[in-house]
Amino acid sequence: MTQRYVAVVGGGDCSPEETRAAEQVGALLARANAVVVCGGLSGVMEAASRGARGAGGIAVGILPGTDRATGNPHLSVAIATGLGELRNGLVVRASDAIIAVGGEFGTLSEIAFALKLGKRVVGLGTWELSRRNDAILRASSPEEAVRLAME
Amino acid sequence: MTQRYVAVVGGGDCSPEETRAAEQVGALLARANAVVVCGGLSGVMEAASRGARGAGGIAVGILPGTDRATGNPHLSVAIATGLGELRNGLVVRASDAIIAVGGEFGTLSEIAFALKLGKRVVGLGTWELSRRNDAILRASSPEEAVRLAME
Amino acid sequence: MTQRYVAVVGGGDCSPEETRAAEQVGALLARANAVVVCGGLSGVMEAASRGARGAGGIAVGILPGTDRATGNPHLSVAIATGLGELRNGLVVRASDAIIAVGGEFGTLSEIAFALKLGKRVVGLGTWELSRRNDAILRASSPEEAVRLAME
Amino acid sequence: MTQRYVAVVGGGDCSPEETRAAEQVGALLARANAVVVCGGLSGVMEAASRGARGAGGIAVGILPGTDRATGNPHLSVAIATGLGELRNGLVVRASDAIIAVGGEFGTLSEIAFALKLGKRVVGLGTWELSRRNDAILRASSPEEAVRLAME
Repeated sequence: MTQRYVAVVGGGDCSPEETRAAEQVGALLARANAVVVCGGLSGVMEAASRGARGAGGIAVGILPGTDRATGNPHLSVAIATGLGELRNGLVVRASDAIIAVGGEFGTLSEIAFALKLGKRVVGLGTWELSRRNDAILRASSPEEAVRLAME
Repeated sequence: MTQRYVAVVGGGDCSPEETRAAEQVGALLARANAVVVCGGLSGVMEAASRGARGAGGIAVGILPGTDRATGNPHLSVAIATGLGELRNGLVVRASDAIIAVGGEFGTLSEIAFALKLGKRVVGLGTWELSRRNDAILRASSPEEAVRLAME
Repeated sequence: MTQRYVAVVGGGDCSPEETRAAEQVGALLARANAVVVCGGLSGVMEAASRGARGAGGIAVGILPGTDRATGNPHLSVAIATGLGELRNGLVVRASDAIIAVGGEFGTLSEIAFALKLGKRVVGLGTWELSRRNDAILRASSPEEAVRLAME
Repeated sequence: MTQRYVAVVGGGDCSPEETRAAEQVGALLARANAVVVCGGLSGVMEAASRGARGAGGIAVGILPGTDRATGNPHLSVAIATGLGELRNGLVVRASDAIIAVGGEFGTLSEIAFALKLGKRVVGLGTWELSRRNDAILRASSPEEAVRLAME
């Protein structure tokens, strides 16, 4: 179990640029032998899963509902939790670091929770934090994001 | 069960000004017949609890650990969860609205989670949100914060 | 916070005898200055809450859903968790001991979880445990149940 | 995501017979293309994981703590939850059916929770249920247990 687990978090709806970035992040994490963890749904989550699987890696989705069929089709393993949005905390708990791509309030909750737990947070076009903006490691490319997350 | 439940969230360490504000927020909520919910520990949580109890109200603490004795002495009811920081999600779930007083990453997670769930978030000297800063209702006094939370 | 918290667990549907027993258990716990914790719904939970409130005590309901209005009308405090049946674990975590009155599978999960956590379990006409039946302290009356739970 | 997820639950300490049975259950589930879910630790959990991996399958461990290194070495994916024994509920939630091999109170909590959720429970030398003993499908061999769980 010496593999690194890295969550890729972001919106269930996202822009084409964010989709491309998330997919590349997923692929690069898989090539670096990391397990990709996500919330299991669409948008950034699905793109990261597709990237990971396309590169021969593992994508784990931690779902809010009780129905595994709501998971995106690229997941290696789908965990139905029935916890609703509280599953965001489990996505973070299960991971050594997180990479945030864009994102809305759910993503912000994951960023904040990860920082509270002392985990590494890498941002790619995501929230800025008014009171502690240095807390997020800023990346300008998927390559840089993955490099920072794997350090 | 027509009472309103309002969470008061903020740092376990806080400034004297934040302590005074949180205590007043707790007292005003109690006078407005709201149940005050918090994370049950020190700082803003304790001040809000003290304010609520001092005004004859109810203060509920939802604790991260399994030992009720870690709760502050002003709680009417202490719920030991053993969920660690994931209990932040329960503080929000249990409440109709939240008032954030100052705060660090834990508070930010509660703000984000509340917004994700569509709950009213009132801020008193707290985080600003880069991507959706209008999402937090800004108050400039405890009175205004409570008024906004009770609307 | 030196009060004892005791959960009263049992079916959401229950017999008239179980209703009477649960109500008396709630009343006796309140008179012994214990906080009564329950799952917040009907049947045994409602009877225990009514008993506790009628005796001037505190009844806390930890609800499975997100809507506080589903709680029974006798709760002093209702905590909406949105965790579904996983909230059974929180009912036990929040309590020092549990008293099981009758009950179905949900009650059995609470009994088992409490025993796993090393908490005292008192049974009043409830499940027997094939592999460790001495683990439940058997009571033959509400008075005996409360006495055993408060020891 | 049309794979079946089946939890194998049982003690962290178990007899040599239970170890053999759990390992065979894991192997047979993997050959039936099911994902094996477990609590991720030793005993029955480890044996089932070893069986699943040895047969080329997937073993998912949902851990109570926050440290993935506590997982047994045969897990394909280890999910650190930090929920303590409350993670038992997630093991069940994530699965379509459960197979209980021997087991103590934790196992009983999983059996009860699964029955509460209406999931299929197969027992191999495990608890009997005083009030509804027909609720557990009894198997007399790993083969029968897996057949019943996959129906």
